[in-house]
Amino acid sequence: MNSKLKITFLGGVGEIGKNMTAYEYNNEIIVVDAGLTFPGDDLPGIDVVIPDTTYLIENKDKIKAYIITHGHEDHIGALPFILEQVNAPIYATKLTLALIDNKMKEYQKVKYKAVTVKPRNVLKIGSFSVEFIKVSHSIAGALALFISSPAGNVVHTGDFKIDFEPLDGAMTDLSRFGELGRRGVDLLMCESTNVCRKGYSMSERSVGRALEEIFKQHPDNRVFVATFASNIHRLQQILNLAEKYGRKVAFTGRSMINISDVALKLGEITFDKKNIIDIDKIDKYADKELLIVTTGSQGEPMSALTRMAAGEFKQIKLGENDLIIMSASPIPGNEKSVYNVINQLFKLGADVIYDELADVHVSGHACQEELKTIHALCRPKHFMPIHGEYRHMKMHKQLAMQMGMDARDIILPSLGMQVELSQTSFKQLGFVKAGQRLIDGYGIGDMDSNVLRERLQLSEEGICVVVVNINNVAGCVTNEPFIITRGVVYHDEAEEFVQDTKATIIASLKEQDLRGMEPNVIKNTLRRTLSNFIFKRTKRRPMILTIVLLD
Amino acid sequence: MNSKLKITFLGGVGEIGKNMTAYEYNNEIIVVDAGLTFPGDDLPGIDVVIPDTTYLIENKDKIKAYIITHGHEDHIGALPFILEQVNAPIYATKLTLALIDNKMKEYQKVKYKAVTVKPRNVLKIGSFSVEFIKVSHSIAGALALFISSPAGNVVHTGDFKIDFEPLDGAMTDLSRFGELGRRGVDLLMCESTNVCRKGYSMSERSVGRALEEIFKQHPDNRVFVATFASNIHRLQQILNLAEKYGRKVAFTGRSMINISDVALKLGEITFDKKNIIDIDKIDKYADKELLIVTTGSQGEPMSALTRMAAGEFKQIKLGENDLIIMSASPIPGNEKSVYNVINQLFKLGADVIYDELADVHVSGHACQEELKTIHALCRPKHFMPIHGEYRHMKMHKQLAMQMGMDARDIILPSLGMQVELSQTSFKQLGFVKAGQRLIDGYGIGDMDSNVLRERLQLSEEGICVVVVNINNVAGCVTNEPFIITRGVVYHDEAEEFVQDTKATIIASLKEQDLRGMEPNVIKNTLRRTLSNFIFKRTKRRPMILTIVLLD
Repeated sequence: MNSKLKITFLGGVGEIGKNMTAYEYNNEIIVVDAGLTFPGDDLPGIDVVIPDTTYLIENKDKIKAYIITHGHEDHIGALPFILEQVNAPIYATKLTLALIDNKMKEYQKVKYKAVTVKPRNVLKIGSFSVEFIKVSHSIAGALALFISSPAGNVVHTGDFKIDFEPLDGAMTDLSRFGELGRRGVDLLMCESTNVCRKGYSMSERSVGRALEEIFKQHPDNRVFVATFASNIHRLQQILNLAEKYGRKVAFTGRSMINISDVALKLGEITFDKKNIIDIDKIDKYADKELLIVTTGSQGEPMSALTRMAAGEFKQIKLGENDLIIMSASPIPGNEKSVYNVINQLFKLGADVIYDELADVHVSGHACQEELKTIHALCRPKHFMPIHGEYRHMKMHKQLAMQMGMDARDIILPSLGMQVELSQTSFKQLGFVKAGQRLIDGYGIGDMDSNVLRERLQLSEEGICVVVVNINNVAGCVTNEPFIITRGVVYHDEAEEFVQDTKATIIASLKEQDLRGMEPNVIKNTLRRTLSNFIFKRTKRRPMILTIVLLD
Repeated sequence: MNSKLKITFLGGVGEIGKNMTAYEYNNEIIVVDAGLTFPGDDLPGIDVVIPDTTYLIENKDKIKAYIITHGHEDHIGALPFILEQVNAPIYATKLTLALIDNKMKEYQKVKYKAVTVKPRNVLKIGSFSVEFIKVSHSIAGALALFISSPAGNVVHTGDFKIDFEPLDGAMTDLSRFGELGRRGVDLLMCESTNVCRKGYSMSERSVGRALEEIFKQHPDNRVFVATFASNIHRLQQILNLAEKYGRKVAFTGRSMINISDVALKLGEITFDKKNIIDIDKIDKYADKELLIVTTGSQGEPMSALTRMAAGEFKQIKLGENDLIIMSASPIPGNEKSVYNVINQLFKLGADVIYDELADVHVSGHACQEELKTIHALCRPKHFMPIHGEYRHMKMHKQLAMQMGMDARDIILPSLGMQVELSQTSFKQLGFVKAGQRLIDGYGIGDMDSNVLRERLQLSEEGICVVVVNINNVAGCVTNEPFIITRGVVYHDEAEEFVQDTKATIIASLKEQDLRGMEPNVIKNTLRRTLSNFIFKRTKRRPMILTIVLLD
């Protein structure tokens, strides 16, 4: 028998974010996760980044399912864009599907079939059999997958941690991983986010205990907690404290209102609704009767907490009696924004407790000993680390080798790589087109697109636009050159700069015999002259647009 | 007696970086430190940021001295710009002065008087008496100051840590702080960088021990160490290991070459020069005989290590037998660049040891228990935290209060604030002009300058330039509208976009009676029309420049 499983990596390898993996057997493909990445400062003006899905579009007819491991943006965020191009049923837990539904509504509605799954369910999808395995993560409803086909079977962990005292009472299903390991796991695909961290991650419950200490010590303050809206178990613990310490709860921030509403409706959170009040009604209560649960733990510019810190939030003016708990760590890249907000909050007289000062956050990703536990339980024949930068995947490989695996049985995947698994082989094939698609308003671009390069140049150096009218029969300039600069000269030097630039242009044109000269030639000469002049003057090389109009 | 000391904060309060404080007594001013900040991504195209020194310029004749506590950029970096405007003698240790000299040579040479000082020196500068106190920091030659005037005396710590086993054998001069405390310190000005960190900072020697472990374990590898060139004690330890393990040393990266050279000449570093080789000569040695000491520990784009990682460093091709030690932590904001470099190094097959994996770096700033030690020794009447964001200074205030100080004896300074100290009072006065000066090529701007706003808009949204020729006597458009966009539309949509934009312009102009209409009116109408059209089309609001030329 020569059946083969082909695995194609479309995202989430060699990077943190936009996770997407395609499993292909016998002309059938199931896609695991469809996530996005939020752009950094190197991608100005870009809204979000999604995987390049050329491969899926080219194999449209083969695609049988999207299987979504959990409801974080880096696992669901690309769906609105991708479903438009390649529609297929979505398999996920109740909460994950509700979050996807929420998301799809924001964008144009694409119809799709949603299939609700539960841990320990086993579904036939084409020639695949997929089993869903309960895992703990910083969102409820997270799953690992056991994907079987005649070519072999794969444990795909998704994001997970091992929480020995989980809030929902159901632990990461270690015993099932163990059973599967006994039966034989051909390939383990395991996340790598926290592989550099020694030991074990702390239990989500430890955050609850830290928060309770803070609640106890601040009985008279108005209390705010900023956290990730999707961290349902965190929300539950916060609500429990509200109940215990007699505080009404007001949610604020769009995603916090949406997701808490969804979670309450689904029963993922339990709380007496009469103790939830509208943010507009908080003036009716004393400070000590209030708990405001808000977005903005990452210092996002338009979030509720950021606007409160800036004094721009209509319903809430912060002051001395306010305590703000930032129940989150800054995601790498967000540090500056987060600390800006914290500084502003302190300046308003509020007290702020954040992760540097107290244990008010835990990670949702497995640390070294947890990863080892999964390796030990699965005892896989082959291994590929996923969900990490190269340094994480490399370290995860070392970890697997320390546990006895052979380097030949480990492949470090990269974007676009295809890997083949069969009962007799495990090998890297070639690469398919893969990478980043930049969502930019209604536009979609690539990393090497003109738009991005132009924006970066504009942002570093500014622009200088020059318009000259020329009569190339008489060979003369017929109008005073028109000059506009943006992002080049400071106001106090602007007038002199424009005058001197004009003089330079006129002098340069006078030097040449313009009769019969092509506008393009004039344009290029002018651009060179100006570039040199401006560099000497400012030590900057702005983008120069010269427009030569013939009369 | 009613003599008063006035302290003006021109930098380094409410922020990390660009430290500068002016002490003023009896029409005499001494300026402590003159630092810069490196701009973040929110300041595109800006080279460096220095303090707004309007106050110094306005009080030019009073300024008697610049006293520089140590040679880091955030303490010396503004000197080349500021000395041009306000010249005065510079007082600092030998190494600090050498680094300043190095720096001044990069820029146009301004002549200045340099006065070399040593720990325990006491100098009369005008009515001030200034004593220099040895402190440990992540650079040699660091000083705290004891500034006395008839109005009172001040301990100004500068940046420091307490290292109980310092490399140079001379500890932070705790006993002198103690003596001063016994005599009476009216005001303590103490740095706050690490006030959020519990306990003590680790000794610089612990890095040496960690590095030695790594050297021992990698006898056959070619070893690279990337670190801050100015960390002389770190360099010394690295050189000691080179000697002990029989490796020749090649320095690479401009600042590494410059500073190691300066430090060797001054005797701040001791090493047998015959064991230093040129980077061009490394091919003559076996891998195990080599140690390359390089810049680039912060992933700086043009640094030696970054170029090696990108395969763009002529003399060095990295491979499997190379071990790179990143002996530094990413400065907040640099994480992405640093990890990019690490990922690239791993991909080349090299091994990389960085701060997440081993203790190859320690901070140069005092943690909580060290700060408490200084407070306890100085026992100041009054206290102002400096060198920190607001959150740090606030926490430092709390720390002082926990040690028994009264809130009334503590002032949290902010940029431009003036504080008055006399034998009978300690109070905040008003504010003087202060803030950021942006060095931008040959230009100098402010935070609220047009250039910065324009660059940020350009980078987010791009630009659309439109030129139309109009005959406002006949009331018609005399030329096809000319359209250029940059950073707005992606190539594949560009042609259609330009055509439709042209049609929109023509339609809009046709709707109006252009006869006798002012170009400005036409321009503004056109801009509005275009802005709406482009937003509908792209969901973006580019900068729109409309140029209306009259025939």
